[in-house]
Amino acid sequence: MSFFEKTISKETIFNGKIIDLNVHTVELPNGKTSKREIINHAGGVAIIAYKDSETLFMVEQFRKPIEGVLLEIPAGKIEKNEDVLECAKRELEEEIGYRAKELKYLGRIVTSPGFCDEYIFIYKAEELYKGRDDLGDEDEFINVKEIKIDRVKEMIKEGKIIDAKTICALMMI
Amino acid sequence: MSFFEKTISKETIFNGKIIDLNVHTVELPNGKTSKREIINHAGGVAIIAYKDSETLFMVEQFRKPIEGVLLEIPAGKIEKNEDVLECAKRELEEEIGYRAKELKYLGRIVTSPGFCDEYIFIYKAEELYKGRDDLGDEDEFINVKEIKIDRVKEMIKEGKIIDAKTICALMMI
Repeated sequence: MSFFEKTISKETIFNGKIIDLNVHTVELPNGKTSKREIINHAGGVAIIAYKDSETLFMVEQFRKPIEGVLLEIPAGKIEKNEDVLECAKRELEEEIGYRAKELKYLGRIVTSPGFCDEYIFIYKAEELYKGRDDLGDEDEFINVKEIKIDRVKEMIKEGKIIDAKTICALMMI
Repeated sequence: MSFFEKTISKETIFNGKIIDLNVHTVELPNGKTSKREIINHAGGVAIIAYKDSETLFMVEQFRKPIEGVLLEIPAGKIEKNEDVLECAKRELEEEIGYRAKELKYLGRIVTSPGFCDEYIFIYKAEELYKGRDDLGDEDEFINVKEIKIDRVKEMIKEGKIIDAKTICALMMI
């Protein structure tokens, strides 16, 4: 396409546990060069988890970047070499303690394409049954909530749910 | 709240034009410590811009992080010390060449709260009139499209629109 930006050189600033940061020098369509600060992220999953036909499992957790608690659908990061569907199964059980008889793929989103390559793959989980009880990663602290879907939609309208993946996922069901 | 994570120390990795990266050492609710890789971003705006009651202005642009072209609503980053509403007016004119008689605030989202503090403030622009003709920042290359709202919603369902802020904004109108 005509507005492709070709990387001329790349400087690696940081290789972390969750994100990498590279600054690309790119050639623009007009022949000039510019810098692009790019976060590389392995991507994630997010799951619309039905307790019953009217009720979703949601998770409340502290999010350090915004120094506040958010209400979100269960979600998490894809581990290295992990299959996306396996990741969805793992995160569902880690975050809410349930397994699903069926996980249906709904679609994917890009969260912040101006500077970040993170995709989130969204699934719908139905016919849940109890899995493990020890919720969360060793350094995750989560409250599981059961909320009616209609109430979730109201909370989006009221600005009480502001998490992008959660809002997008509700748009996909 | 019980699951607050207190920063014990902070290492600045990068201060860029678009993003900063800091690694925080935090104290967890269980008394252990952990690291949090945090991207600081000034935040952005995104605008549902009505050409008429059934049609939206959309923008198509190359997004280097995903090495591809995305169809999005007009949007952009808040400049230093810039008022959010002024930013919405500026980005609307820069991206599609129109000004709005009315810009209504719809709500805000967090794009990727696991590692990034970016908020996007979403506006609805109506009664548009022609502004400047030279579209884009000096290193932005944009195609403006006019698309029926019903078609935008279909394109979300079909996975042809994957940009999170665009999907969230459509959920808010």
